[in-house]
Amino acid sequence: MKVGIIGASGYTGFELLRILLRHPEVEVTVLTAERFAGKGIEEVFPPLKGLPLPPFEPLEVERMAERADLFFTALPHGTSMEVVKALFERGKKVVDLSADFRLRDPSLYERWYGPHRCPELLKEAVYGLPEVHRERIRGASLVANPGCYPTGAILALMPLASEGLLPEEGVVIDAKSGVSGTGRAPSQGTHFCEVAEAIRAYNVRGHRHSPEMDQELSSLQGRRVRVNFTPHLVPMNRGILSTIYVPLEKELKEGDLYELYRTTYSEEPFIRLCEPGRVPSTSEVRGTNFCDIGLVLKGRSAVVISAIDNLTKGASGQAVQNMNLMLGLVETLGLEDLSLFP
Amino acid sequence: MKVGIIGASGYTGFELLRILLRHPEVEVTVLTAERFAGKGIEEVFPPLKGLPLPPFEPLEVERMAERADLFFTALPHGTSMEVVKALFERGKKVVDLSADFRLRDPSLYERWYGPHRCPELLKEAVYGLPEVHRERIRGASLVANPGCYPTGAILALMPLASEGLLPEEGVVIDAKSGVSGTGRAPSQGTHFCEVAEAIRAYNVRGHRHSPEMDQELSSLQGRRVRVNFTPHLVPMNRGILSTIYVPLEKELKEGDLYELYRTTYSEEPFIRLCEPGRVPSTSEVRGTNFCDIGLVLKGRSAVVISAIDNLTKGASGQAVQNMNLMLGLVETLGLEDLSLFP
Amino acid sequence: MKVGIIGASGYTGFELLRILLRHPEVEVTVLTAERFAGKGIEEVFPPLKGLPLPPFEPLEVERMAERADLFFTALPHGTSMEVVKALFERGKKVVDLSADFRLRDPSLYERWYGPHRCPELLKEAVYGLPEVHRERIRGASLVANPGCYPTGAILALMPLASEGLLPEEGVVIDAKSGVSGTGRAPSQGTHFCEVAEAIRAYNVRGHRHSPEMDQELSSLQGRRVRVNFTPHLVPMNRGILSTIYVPLEKELKEGDLYELYRTTYSEEPFIRLCEPGRVPSTSEVRGTNFCDIGLVLKGRSAVVISAIDNLTKGASGQAVQNMNLMLGLVETLGLEDLSLFP
Amino acid sequence: MKVGIIGASGYTGFELLRILLRHPEVEVTVLTAERFAGKGIEEVFPPLKGLPLPPFEPLEVERMAERADLFFTALPHGTSMEVVKALFERGKKVVDLSADFRLRDPSLYERWYGPHRCPELLKEAVYGLPEVHRERIRGASLVANPGCYPTGAILALMPLASEGLLPEEGVVIDAKSGVSGTGRAPSQGTHFCEVAEAIRAYNVRGHRHSPEMDQELSSLQGRRVRVNFTPHLVPMNRGILSTIYVPLEKELKEGDLYELYRTTYSEEPFIRLCEPGRVPSTSEVRGTNFCDIGLVLKGRSAVVISAIDNLTKGASGQAVQNMNLMLGLVETLGLEDLSLFP
Repeated sequence: MKVGIIGASGYTGFELLRILLRHPEVEVTVLTAERFAGKGIEEVFPPLKGLPLPPFEPLEVERMAERADLFFTALPHGTSMEVVKALFERGKKVVDLSADFRLRDPSLYERWYGPHRCPELLKEAVYGLPEVHRERIRGASLVANPGCYPTGAILALMPLASEGLLPEEGVVIDAKSGVSGTGRAPSQGTHFCEVAEAIRAYNVRGHRHSPEMDQELSSLQGRRVRVNFTPHLVPMNRGILSTIYVPLEKELKEGDLYELYRTTYSEEPFIRLCEPGRVPSTSEVRGTNFCDIGLVLKGRSAVVISAIDNLTKGASGQAVQNMNLMLGLVETLGLEDLSLFP
Repeated sequence: MKVGIIGASGYTGFELLRILLRHPEVEVTVLTAERFAGKGIEEVFPPLKGLPLPPFEPLEVERMAERADLFFTALPHGTSMEVVKALFERGKKVVDLSADFRLRDPSLYERWYGPHRCPELLKEAVYGLPEVHRERIRGASLVANPGCYPTGAILALMPLASEGLLPEEGVVIDAKSGVSGTGRAPSQGTHFCEVAEAIRAYNVRGHRHSPEMDQELSSLQGRRVRVNFTPHLVPMNRGILSTIYVPLEKELKEGDLYELYRTTYSEEPFIRLCEPGRVPSTSEVRGTNFCDIGLVLKGRSAVVISAIDNLTKGASGQAVQNMNLMLGLVETLGLEDLSLFP
Repeated sequence: MKVGIIGASGYTGFELLRILLRHPEVEVTVLTAERFAGKGIEEVFPPLKGLPLPPFEPLEVERMAERADLFFTALPHGTSMEVVKALFERGKKVVDLSADFRLRDPSLYERWYGPHRCPELLKEAVYGLPEVHRERIRGASLVANPGCYPTGAILALMPLASEGLLPEEGVVIDAKSGVSGTGRAPSQGTHFCEVAEAIRAYNVRGHRHSPEMDQELSSLQGRRVRVNFTPHLVPMNRGILSTIYVPLEKELKEGDLYELYRTTYSEEPFIRLCEPGRVPSTSEVRGTNFCDIGLVLKGRSAVVISAIDNLTKGASGQAVQNMNLMLGLVETLGLEDLSLFP
Repeated sequence: MKVGIIGASGYTGFELLRILLRHPEVEVTVLTAERFAGKGIEEVFPPLKGLPLPPFEPLEVERMAERADLFFTALPHGTSMEVVKALFERGKKVVDLSADFRLRDPSLYERWYGPHRCPELLKEAVYGLPEVHRERIRGASLVANPGCYPTGAILALMPLASEGLLPEEGVVIDAKSGVSGTGRAPSQGTHFCEVAEAIRAYNVRGHRHSPEMDQELSSLQGRRVRVNFTPHLVPMNRGILSTIYVPLEKELKEGDLYELYRTTYSEEPFIRLCEPGRVPSTSEVRGTNFCDIGLVLKGRSAVVISAIDNLTKGASGQAVQNMNLMLGLVETLGLEDLSLFP
């Protein structure tokens, strides 16, 4: 199978390349990158020096659509939708890593991101969290790859939501992310010296990933859920730890809680439950497509902690997992890497 | 004034020295350190090479009590109490940096730390958070210096608790600490490679600092409060960021929330409120005795974020603040350092 | 093929597992670890939770020799030699990651490490740097896997040494290593807070890896070479950057220098030359078996900079490369991972 | 005394403020910053929130010259010279932190930085390394504050150079710097993820600080010296470690080497020699104006290692030291801070 990567010069682009270049069933035939068009691979991605790669070209859908069967679009929000539409109309399968097709309600999209110019395509898009929507992803031509924070949060809460155990309000999601989640473009806030030896919250009043969590959790729960989400920036490259506090209305035993999670996830290749008494660290999933989950019951409050690599399960790894499903391949193909530790 | 430091070879000991060696009104005359007794200063604290310091001696209360008016005890929990008692009985003033005199209820102490062998002294001890107990500290001979996490959490919540606005349960305190909070002794969990590029929660089921928070917040609130506290380890040296989620029973406006904090803290030299829309970072208080606080109201939930340096306001800086009060000195003396940035 | 790992609980043990568990031609059948014997895999190596692994057993050569064809010994220097001997005598192939069989001269070993108790085996051992000794490795039963610093330094200098271009004295090797090079056991010097935000040299007067460099470089050069080597500890997990200054006796052009390196390494799968004007960073080889090399000629001095991952090409990756050669497999098998970036 | 800071919004500006706001003899009356003009202090320097500071104004020499006696110029190279000239002509004392007046030879300046538009002022400028030029600094109106790398390197080599012990070529200066040395403006190369977990050399072919070292070392030595200097970027905020390799022509004993350094620096308040057998770490000088030096003799090669904080002794601390000298104040005033450790 031939695949292309649109907007390949960022960290999610690199992570796609890292996975796809070793994937046994696909070949990368198209790479685009405006900022780096015409530059050599050693300049764009020094770690790939010497590898035979297609050149980085400027984006021109017409010219490149022929050359691949499936495209990953890793463009900024707002820029992605029209490229996706053009590819879709040419019968290409697309995994879109932007937020453009994640929210089913275009007015909600508009509130957080700006006007949606291709709302007619929203009904074609499947939210690409395989643990929730696997069957629909298999049949989809357009998959909206989830945000990094929503991936960690929804996977941590799905068993509770599926049982209707989430309160409408009051679920606190305190998430801590490595800096690669903000992308590769430099900014004052991601300058090394402003990040090292510091931790801070950001977008406390509201973050674009909240409505995504609400949408999926409400759908799983069967009624409206509004989470209280606060992201933080941690001085590390990769990883998201989500510490989630769920006030339980029903009395529950920790054993039952574990049983619920075990049952829900017994067949999932990328979900790992920690042994009772243990909680996950981001270092245990570095470079892998795993989502590790730990559970503690404190009185009437469940503390659920999940760890993912924001660039793998939180972005490019999950995108490849979605590709595998869409192309009828084994779901875990190309995603068997073990964690780089330390 | 002459002061001594008992157990001076750890990070809180160093931080006391850093502050006291430049304090205009005191002289350090006694230093003890079992692990490093007899070793030269360059071996114990290379950054202090060349400074004229008293030698590190083994601990012998009898012999050293004469040589100072006030002692800081920076010994492990359980070890400290008897040394404190011996100093107290000799009429010395003591600021104890261990947990031994923080909990007023000896049975609570026993549950978290082990048997209390000097319970008769508990009534003499004042909990050394000047913003709460300033007047009692002035008159005290024994001050129990607060834990690092409780300092950040209680200061963030005091205005709400004083108005009786905290719910009995449901306050979530998600705290993120630098590694120096675990002390200077090496361990598997603080080995560089196990910490770098990772974030993890620990003691999720229960941490010794919880009862300390509950004690002080219940007392401020005028009725029982039980917080839901989870500490995390962050790959940085210094700093605690506490992200606190308070479900409010009463409707409240953000402006009123700010007003409440402004009023409560208008005279406090070490509390800084962030401007509306801003939240603090640990890098902004590094090496200072400040506690910075930011506020955001999200629906019926207040998000209060505080940042302290765990070694300064969270330990040794606060200990010196307490000393200043106990000795009748200007409260801020020796604590005027600005943040080292970056 | 069945392989065993003796002393598997450290970072080199983990790195061996990371590579071997995905290697298509071998199966790991034996794991020993004194410190962690009987502990579950989640406790020893949390990132491997859930994987079907043989249990960690205490070391007993008799009992385990039958169960594998080739063993990796990752034991401390001095402890390794007798285990290696016992395995060798039972006809097992061995890749020894300790220093015990690296130095051909037992009196030199004794000066740096202590008495050698199996000197008769030294003549059986091949120094496991495939770029230098490939053919001998193929036929060897005992391979002494090189030290991490010597790997980076010798590969950087081999083209010059082979042409006799190194001066007897005066080659300066200034190497900077991540902390994983010191192993997994905690110590004061590798406590997070003593390493973060700091860089320092260590063992300046003499480091055990110097004689290893001298031995191999002298052999390549055809006459005695004594390097001036200084290692440094850098606040990062992985990687060694070696900045090497070679005073050249002959006049040389940069183009010729490049040509010499290109020719020497044209067939090497794991050596990558940077484009002229570029020098390598450790981040470009993270988790890979590559050794990247950059060259700059400054007057009569060549500056050669090499970057390796100390745990991969500097230890376990190279050990697997050696295993592949010893077992007649494709040399790069299991070592095709691309760099984790960032 | 009234002082102004021109170009105050970077890291050297902050470090000047950190020191000067607590300096007992000066008052900061002027602050300029183009990029941040009109912004509140909390936005420019969050750690200074709440402090009474003059507003950040755009640069207008005419208007501000009246308001201070001495100015620090912390502008980019090339921009600084004309501002310095305008201040100088108005009779103001100036400490210039740019490179514009460091090189005595304008043609050398032109080769590395571009045309010099005020060459007539070069003869007025004194190179502001007090350990070398103290007396001339006392009488100067214009001091060219040294570069960070030259400060660490020249102080490490001055005793040898003064005795004529440096070879003309062959001195290798391998320097490792924290990221704050590159300034506060964000760039791809200082984006957190490109720096963390990585070490790399840069400007290997030639760095602007080389001619500065050559100028001062040649002058001390009494004949031409050309060093071989390579800077590296280390994932930490502050600090420069310079590992310097000096091939000695004369036989020398380590004791004599120590004696030479001890004698040279016996009266220097900011130079600290490590005990024999110890070498410095950047963490031991963090936030201080110290330059720590360690010495090891290896055969005919002296290894001299110096550690400074690039923002303090390497920039703003040294600038204040120069100011103290120029104003006839005690040289160490405002510079007594002990290291923040860890």
